[in-house]
Amino acid sequence: MSSTFSFRVLKTDGAARRGEMTTAHGVVQTPAFMAVGTRGAVKGLTPRDLLAEGAEIILGNTYHLWLRPGDGVIARQGGLHRFIGWNRPILTDSGGFQAFSLGDRRTITEDGIRFRSHLDGSEHMLTPEGAADIQAQLGSDIAMVLDECLAQPASFEQVRESTELTARWARRGRDRFLQLQAGNEVGPHFPIITSPGQAQFGIIQGGTDLSLRTLSVERTLGVGFEAYAIGGLSVGEPPDTMYSVVEHTAPQLPADRPRYLMGVGTPLDLIEAVARGVDLFDCVMPTRNARNGQLFTSQGRIAIKNAQYAEDPGPPDPNCTCYTCSHFSRAYLRHLFTVGEMTGAILNSVHNLRFYLDTMARIREAIVFGCLGSLQQTLRSTFSRHL
Amino acid sequence: MSSTFSFRVLKTDGAARRGEMTTAHGVVQTPAFMAVGTRGAVKGLTPRDLLAEGAEIILGNTYHLWLRPGDGVIARQGGLHRFIGWNRPILTDSGGFQAFSLGDRRTITEDGIRFRSHLDGSEHMLTPEGAADIQAQLGSDIAMVLDECLAQPASFEQVRESTELTARWARRGRDRFLQLQAGNEVGPHFPIITSPGQAQFGIIQGGTDLSLRTLSVERTLGVGFEAYAIGGLSVGEPPDTMYSVVEHTAPQLPADRPRYLMGVGTPLDLIEAVARGVDLFDCVMPTRNARNGQLFTSQGRIAIKNAQYAEDPGPPDPNCTCYTCSHFSRAYLRHLFTVGEMTGAILNSVHNLRFYLDTMARIREAIVFGCLGSLQQTLRSTFSRHL
Repeated sequence: MSSTFSFRVLKTDGAARRGEMTTAHGVVQTPAFMAVGTRGAVKGLTPRDLLAEGAEIILGNTYHLWLRPGDGVIARQGGLHRFIGWNRPILTDSGGFQAFSLGDRRTITEDGIRFRSHLDGSEHMLTPEGAADIQAQLGSDIAMVLDECLAQPASFEQVRESTELTARWARRGRDRFLQLQAGNEVGPHFPIITSPGQAQFGIIQGGTDLSLRTLSVERTLGVGFEAYAIGGLSVGEPPDTMYSVVEHTAPQLPADRPRYLMGVGTPLDLIEAVARGVDLFDCVMPTRNARNGQLFTSQGRIAIKNAQYAEDPGPPDPNCTCYTCSHFSRAYLRHLFTVGEMTGAILNSVHNLRFYLDTMARIREAIVFGCLGSLQQTLRSTFSRHL
Repeated sequence: MSSTFSFRVLKTDGAARRGEMTTAHGVVQTPAFMAVGTRGAVKGLTPRDLLAEGAEIILGNTYHLWLRPGDGVIARQGGLHRFIGWNRPILTDSGGFQAFSLGDRRTITEDGIRFRSHLDGSEHMLTPEGAADIQAQLGSDIAMVLDECLAQPASFEQVRESTELTARWARRGRDRFLQLQAGNEVGPHFPIITSPGQAQFGIIQGGTDLSLRTLSVERTLGVGFEAYAIGGLSVGEPPDTMYSVVEHTAPQLPADRPRYLMGVGTPLDLIEAVARGVDLFDCVMPTRNARNGQLFTSQGRIAIKNAQYAEDPGPPDPNCTCYTCSHFSRAYLRHLFTVGEMTGAILNSVHNLRFYLDTMARIREAIVFGCLGSLQQTLRSTFSRHL
């Protein structure tokens, strides 16, 4: 484990853990939700907004930042924190998921992922070593190792092979990471290390087959990372399948390391996964849905464009104290959405992000008081699937 | 003059005036620039941003707010201030300019402007009385009387007739305004007066013919308003023509009332008009240009997309202390613009608005110190036409 990264569990409630994760850029209270800043900005928000609503950590996308403006540009500007004006923890993904999502535009080989850019068709190769180098240049506090995200549905044998490939990539990615951290020469173009205290997380794959999840846990723990993520979920499988995989996998991961469920999810998903031992989440849902006019509230989701809100003088969520709920009405937000004003997307994003952060705060409190189960019931009734 | 609206000149420097305008929602230091909040929001900004950068007054567009969400909706929500969460002065235009801009979709008669909505083609009639009613329902601090904005080029006779029509509309608009303020019945649908201390400004038209400007001044002053605006400029005429018309017209307006030059302009236009006696301005330029990646700085305009800024670690403007310049580099803003991130439009808008507000603050200070002429020389060299 690197010197600056650490994690400690403060309290448990069943499988749920209330913890504290320390990174090179500060402490994160867990369970935590990370807002997604794909291309170096959480869409529609500024760092000032993020801080005001209580964000402690955000995520950046390696694929996008690598292509534009380029990890070299960011490194020469002093790293991602300085470049984007966010001086708190940042996690970067490995770029694998975005490259994988290119479909026909990418080929996966033993060496890595060869793809043509979605921007200009230019050819690129993303390897486990490259993903480590790029993230070293970005200087995030937490780097993710490159994994293979397999297309679903896939046969047992395909998933098994993919899990083994992910394990081999994990070994290569970890080796490169350790070389970089040690300051060893890795080639003619040694990356600029902009965040020396970077940690690296491994990723558990294995699809929805529990035995392959176990295999992936064994392989990945065999390599050894600062902490571990559960990947390959929230890609279209039923929620109960996701919960089962999490319930199976999380307890096999080291109890003294944070567990990160990638790309998840709805407010209900968050608490269901916390109850199964997960500590970290990221998802575009709060900000994306905000731009589409869907608000998360303590009474469930609302579509702000609906005519019923045209003259509703109340705040989006009467139980919320975010900037939006403290100053603006549903009627106003509905108007801004209807006419397509950017300010509407901003105000909706502020609220939705705050709702997610507040949900995590409530979850953390519930764990401390040993009543996560009752909060779970509340969220289940508020965010039942048909809402 | 209504009880809540007042204006006093604190200091002069040549024809330029340093003043203080008091409205129902507070005081505005003049000369002042009003950010444009067309549809109830200054594009990309929140009231929090506006306050942080020092905005004292904003403008709303009657045409747009009338059509969506409707002045009735806004009135029932307690008026525009409450609806948009801005508790400081607001000026609303009359809607005439937007209706006029519909071209083929509108017909001007003695009664008013008949037009088909740009949204759904529905027919509407904007009369001088209607413009007063709508603005009473919006509850702005300053309402504008309906005027005719004549298409250019136009013959002397056309302009003269238009000037006379504008004067007749001014009479009708003023009569209605006074009826509303007195609480007199004006018909079956008496507007909800959401800002009882509203003032109403008359508008001087007359094109670029100085004798017709004088005629319009005589007619409009004959009606009598709390203050007066100069309209029909910044519609494509050369800057020197605009300056000449302002120089001719402003001194004919009452010295103890603010003078508002509508829809103007560049930073250079602002000081040139102040030097000729103007006190108030509005323009979409700072926010629109921000969204297009053009930043106003103390070194002139810069196009942030240019490759030369790709690795420029400096702030947009080294002499600016806005949120954007205090936290972000040209390299970052260039990246956000290049990839099309909303956050870039926000940060650019914050800066450009602040640049305009700072320019007005420098102008006010220069008047107090009697050195407006030297600031004028500075801005002329910074914003000469070829930049």
